Amino acid sequence: MAMIYELYYWPEIQGRGEFIRLALEEAGAKYVDVARGSGKKLGMAAVSKLLDDAKMATPPFALPALRAGKIVIAQTANILLFLGGRHGLAPRPEAGKLWTHQLQLTMADFLAEIHDTHHPIASGLYYEDQRQEAKRRSREFLASRAPKFLSYFEDVLARNPGHKHLVGARLTYADLSLFQIVSGLNYAFPNAMRALGKTTPLTLALHERVAKRPRIAAYLASERRIAFNAMGIFRHYKELDE
Amino acid sequence: MAMIYELYYWPEIQGRGEFIRLALEEAGAKYVDVARGSGKKLGMAAVSKLLDDAKMATPPFALPALRAGKIVIAQTANILLFLGGRHGLAPRPEAGKLWTHQLQLTMADFLAEIHDTHHPIASGLYYEDQRQEAKRRSREFLASRAPKFLSYFEDVLARNPGHKHLVGARLTYADLSLFQIVSGLNYAFPNAMRALGKTTPLTLALHERVAKRPRIAAYLASERRIAFNAMGIFRHYKELDE
Repeated sequence: MAMIYELYYWPEIQGRGEFIRLALEEAGAKYVDVARGSGKKLGMAAVSKLLDDAKMATPPFALPALRAGKIVIAQTANILLFLGGRHGLAPRPEAGKLWTHQLQLTMADFLAEIHDTHHPIASGLYYEDQRQEAKRRSREFLASRAPKFLSYFEDVLARNPGHKHLVGARLTYADLSLFQIVSGLNYAFPNAMRALGKTTPLTLALHERVAKRPRIAAYLASERRIAFNAMGIFRHYKELDE
Repeated sequence: MAMIYELYYWPEIQGRGEFIRLALEEAGAKYVDVARGSGKKLGMAAVSKLLDDAKMATPPFALPALRAGKIVIAQTANILLFLGGRHGLAPRPEAGKLWTHQLQLTMADFLAEIHDTHHPIASGLYYEDQRQEAKRRSREFLASRAPKFLSYFEDVLARNPGHKHLVGARLTYADLSLFQIVSGLNYAFPNAMRALGKTTPLTLALHERVAKRPRIAAYLASERRIAFNAMGIFRHYKELDE
């Protein structure tokens, strides 16, 4: 019997968990999205049990976490490093493996900055309590940081022969993650992305190709894909997208 | 002839490069700190050459980067993943390797939040232009996030038999990185750390042990160790430490 992975993540948002979901879906791996299930050993009670397990030798600081047999792995990029090796979603030779991971870690940095556009003061405060700071941070983000990150990935695609993948000649989890980031930015900053997108044609083309991959297309059309919303990392506030 | 690593990082700050320097020093590895050297193929000109190399297939988004023979690796945690395997600074079995990396990635998240205490709006603006926001973010950071991260690592130490290392029974690069984070916090937030330190005795003891390791002690006493200053990630502004 093939291993069934257990994904531990919040049930109502895409969040960082979505990068793991996309990799599992593309791999055709069997997994349960623990918090969203019901029944024995599922649901938020099972997530709390993991987070509160005082005997666990390797406790996660935060979700997502993935249980794979006896081990529990946390940190999004770390989970993808593991899954990439298991499911052919990254090159096997060390140099290619590290390069794929490097791109993922750069996307993790980008994602943290995307989050902070609406929470520049504290993740524990409401958006409404840091709206003025969010406006200022978003302006700087859209003027400077988003173009810098997006043009970087565009450049990586341009340098890779064929221009269809970030790494080598096959799909990797880094491609899936860039798809997710572009999807999220399109949702959160539609106005800004109309202009930014014109400068990143290879990135937009990759985004479209990933969306059409059979397993990804089936996933996106399914109930397993949670819609973007005002609780996740990518949020649409009109006043931040001007 | 043993390989001589080339570390590419800014010459005037500890910054993220320091996590790499500590690992290289503890390993007794031969390396050149490119930007700080003078002569052929050294100095800032050599760093610029790397960053502007339009032919490089795997360009770094940012420094630090490490050249190891034919490959160039970027992203601090990724470089440590590589060095950990090469120099016995992480367990060899996959589970231990992933766990060590997971801790490092959690420290990377912590570090990004530490940076944003003085730059909550934009890394491209001066501190003086975001001082009010920095005060607010620092208060939240010291009240909520710093205790959460520090108590997490304290808990990891408490769960590990012997309580002397974060991972297993031997030193890993994660221990070196936690040393660096505590050193930096002590510099940036001496007032807050006097109180916080009381709640993290195992972490402070690890910090002291690492500082006394022969190669680390020699490094810290050498000119290779750049002093903390007002340009790095860890900055001391009295008004943020109240």
